[in-house]
Amino acid sequence: MGFVDLNCDLGESFGAYKLGMDNEILDYVTSANIACGFHAGDPSVMRKTVTLALGKGVQIGAHPGLPDLVGFGRRPMAISPQEAYDMVIYQVGALQAFVKAEGASMQHVKPHGALYNMAAKDPKLSEAIAEAIYAIDPELILFGLSGSQLTKAGEKIGLRVAHEVFSDRTYQIDGSLTSRKEPNALIVDKDQAFKQVLRMIKEGLVKTEQEKDIAIKADTICIHGDGKAALTFARDIRQGFQAENIVVQAIRTK
Amino acid sequence: MGFVDLNCDLGESFGAYKLGMDNEILDYVTSANIACGFHAGDPSVMRKTVTLALGKGVQIGAHPGLPDLVGFGRRPMAISPQEAYDMVIYQVGALQAFVKAEGASMQHVKPHGALYNMAAKDPKLSEAIAEAIYAIDPELILFGLSGSQLTKAGEKIGLRVAHEVFSDRTYQIDGSLTSRKEPNALIVDKDQAFKQVLRMIKEGLVKTEQEKDIAIKADTICIHGDGKAALTFARDIRQGFQAENIVVQAIRTK
Amino acid sequence: MGFVDLNCDLGESFGAYKLGMDNEILDYVTSANIACGFHAGDPSVMRKTVTLALGKGVQIGAHPGLPDLVGFGRRPMAISPQEAYDMVIYQVGALQAFVKAEGASMQHVKPHGALYNMAAKDPKLSEAIAEAIYAIDPELILFGLSGSQLTKAGEKIGLRVAHEVFSDRTYQIDGSLTSRKEPNALIVDKDQAFKQVLRMIKEGLVKTEQEKDIAIKADTICIHGDGKAALTFARDIRQGFQAENIVVQAIRTK
Amino acid sequence: MGFVDLNCDLGESFGAYKLGMDNEILDYVTSANIACGFHAGDPSVMRKTVTLALGKGVQIGAHPGLPDLVGFGRRPMAISPQEAYDMVIYQVGALQAFVKAEGASMQHVKPHGALYNMAAKDPKLSEAIAEAIYAIDPELILFGLSGSQLTKAGEKIGLRVAHEVFSDRTYQIDGSLTSRKEPNALIVDKDQAFKQVLRMIKEGLVKTEQEKDIAIKADTICIHGDGKAALTFARDIRQGFQAENIVVQAIRTK
Repeated sequence: MGFVDLNCDLGESFGAYKLGMDNEILDYVTSANIACGFHAGDPSVMRKTVTLALGKGVQIGAHPGLPDLVGFGRRPMAISPQEAYDMVIYQVGALQAFVKAEGASMQHVKPHGALYNMAAKDPKLSEAIAEAIYAIDPELILFGLSGSQLTKAGEKIGLRVAHEVFSDRTYQIDGSLTSRKEPNALIVDKDQAFKQVLRMIKEGLVKTEQEKDIAIKADTICIHGDGKAALTFARDIRQGFQAENIVVQAIRTK
Repeated sequence: MGFVDLNCDLGESFGAYKLGMDNEILDYVTSANIACGFHAGDPSVMRKTVTLALGKGVQIGAHPGLPDLVGFGRRPMAISPQEAYDMVIYQVGALQAFVKAEGASMQHVKPHGALYNMAAKDPKLSEAIAEAIYAIDPELILFGLSGSQLTKAGEKIGLRVAHEVFSDRTYQIDGSLTSRKEPNALIVDKDQAFKQVLRMIKEGLVKTEQEKDIAIKADTICIHGDGKAALTFARDIRQGFQAENIVVQAIRTK
Repeated sequence: MGFVDLNCDLGESFGAYKLGMDNEILDYVTSANIACGFHAGDPSVMRKTVTLALGKGVQIGAHPGLPDLVGFGRRPMAISPQEAYDMVIYQVGALQAFVKAEGASMQHVKPHGALYNMAAKDPKLSEAIAEAIYAIDPELILFGLSGSQLTKAGEKIGLRVAHEVFSDRTYQIDGSLTSRKEPNALIVDKDQAFKQVLRMIKEGLVKTEQEKDIAIKADTICIHGDGKAALTFARDIRQGFQAENIVVQAIRTK
Repeated sequence: MGFVDLNCDLGESFGAYKLGMDNEILDYVTSANIACGFHAGDPSVMRKTVTLALGKGVQIGAHPGLPDLVGFGRRPMAISPQEAYDMVIYQVGALQAFVKAEGASMQHVKPHGALYNMAAKDPKLSEAIAEAIYAIDPELILFGLSGSQLTKAGEKIGLRVAHEVFSDRTYQIDGSLTSRKEPNALIVDKDQAFKQVLRMIKEGLVKTEQEKDIAIKADTICIHGDGKAALTFARDIRQGFQAENIVVQAIRTK
């Protein structure tokens, strides 16, 4: 028997712009990463998403991103560690207030997009992010790419961390994700995707693009919430885990 | 003997743009209203201003404003009470995180500019703002125009409120400030300005533009922090209060 | 026989956010009002929308709005006439550059949302907008609410104006639209909507909510482009006009 | 005898935030690079700065930057060439409208900050920027780092280019500027700074940090406009050129 958390990015709508199928995907995931207004989301969307997640018993996390709404936080920017610290404090604090206003507490923080990717490789950026989270609340759990500089920084400062893995991405021998610019970056076949995460959870191993197994921790799986195919995969993966006696539950409830 | 708090808007710089004489004015005031990134301020400025105020023993408040950086939050916008609630939660939460990260706690919330003025006259907007503050932390103190809809809404929901008065503005018979569009809106003479607030504190009265006295509560005085004349007035008003046995101290320390 | 232009708001997507069915609605309308980045749209969306409209032979106009992306430019803001002038110059200039870069020229300018509605009633705001358009290019055509302060200001300065009417909105005896807050603001019945604009074009009359006819100029009709029902109505209204010998063509081609 | 243009970044104020000494520096420079609202500037500042420059007979250029107001456009961002093309069209178009509204025409375009530096080394980014400028108006002059990819791209597409040099920066043997992170990046001594540009103009040579001369074109010199020392240097450099029979005039007036 094993445990796994399913997390999904939510609250990415903005003003008149609707994005994602938040209400539907919340039936399948156990942790919600809610955008905080820098790369997506706005105060009203944040409040609604917090309420929605709490209503479905899903744990809430902040999903801070780079200040780049038009680029959806996906374009790397040369920010300093201090700037990263400041923007994480700001965004996590803003979301936390909505969660507290509803009488609940936040479970985790997962950096978004380019901030997540940059931190995965940059120890100083990761330390700044981990310090910000720890300064706000040492009980918060840091979600980061499994085995990356971000999870290392979290562990170093004394935060509980959740190692995140991807079902639909291939891995390199150093544990990093294959760049999306490479031909074999994505796993399109749903069975193969499921098998990859199943093996990660059960055996702690993943076969890399270099055809060699490496050790990998799989505490939480990133689930997509946009489009019907994503919803179907989320449902199927949950059922698949049930059949394999893997308990799907939020990190902090374990 | 009496008590009074001196508050000042701070942390209004943004990126490469510097505004105000924060370091200097902090020597004279007891409560700092720190901008939260919507009308002024940015995450790094917020952190620095929080640190600066704490270092000088000045109480910290959030200064949430309308989402109008280019207009400095001074242009009225037709926002709904729900939108006001959401933007107050967001901004106060963001600043609170910086304060908590420094191991301190926030004293108050004072809406900024057009949001402050709109709320003073609009009971529904004021109730939404008061609810937002109460939802974040019922111990927070609401700063609003003395006797306005905003202080009324705060009292109604159970928040401690601080009635704010102005030394350099004239009053109308209904307790509102004379519009800046009117010729006699401002009190330029420093002695007259001091005498107006002194009488407010000692007698609870102010002479209106209609030449009639009205009752007014004066818990806190708005002090400006931009320019040398403002600094000089801040210093003089403090010394003046001392000579009159009026204790200048932050609201929550009373 | 008569003439009428059909205009539609386009290019309202932003970054990762998609809005509207631009490609489809361009088959039915003759003038496209393209968002300019303040209330909606971004530089890349603007370029794509300009290319799309030119490819379908649809005339292009700028659709400048208030600087309120999260509110989609629909929340009235207290801007000065000078600020209106400046934001119109800026936005129209930005769109014009995309049009010129494709070797074409712009037909018109139609203010968006709250800016359109505020201008309809405010002569000074309207004059500032008209001056801005005239200063950029006196050949540009100003689209405004039929018979409003905006069209008046355009005519006064010497701009060609297009009086805009709505098929799905009811009118007041003073020629203004019934506020959306009123119960009878919208005409839901498609036949009734068609008959209203047909009579406007043929007879120059509209029956108001006060049951009395008033004179109205109908140079261009506002068509919605979001949702299948809107597309169907756009197609039907074009066919309806054909059957009535009303030529649907862009304002400046007449 | 020789010629040189002096250019300065202007119009960098934003809303309530004032930056630079635009009015004073305009007495010394011949070309003004005016911010376009992405990294600095707003529509009202743009209009005022255009008017100011025209009043002093200074040639106007657009100074487009990255969409990063809080970072003042100084933080490199991973934008695509297409995005660069789009943001240049947008910003140059916006400024051009203000210039045209005043009955004048624009002389040049100089990318700002990180966009300028990134383009100097990136041929694809530079080509996209050059294409955007050419598409708006082939008569516009492109200002870029002397001998960089940006000036190369401009020359390739058929734009007139102005090779820009710096008086207060040291050079590397490949013609690039010494990084500000290096100890000897800046030339603090004013005489040495003047001698460096004088030699560039007269001999077309500069001594690099590697103690070897390289050829360099010097069409225009970047002058700073913030602070009294900058103003003094601007005045001194003009007088110095006069004494050396070097004519200071705007690029397109030559």
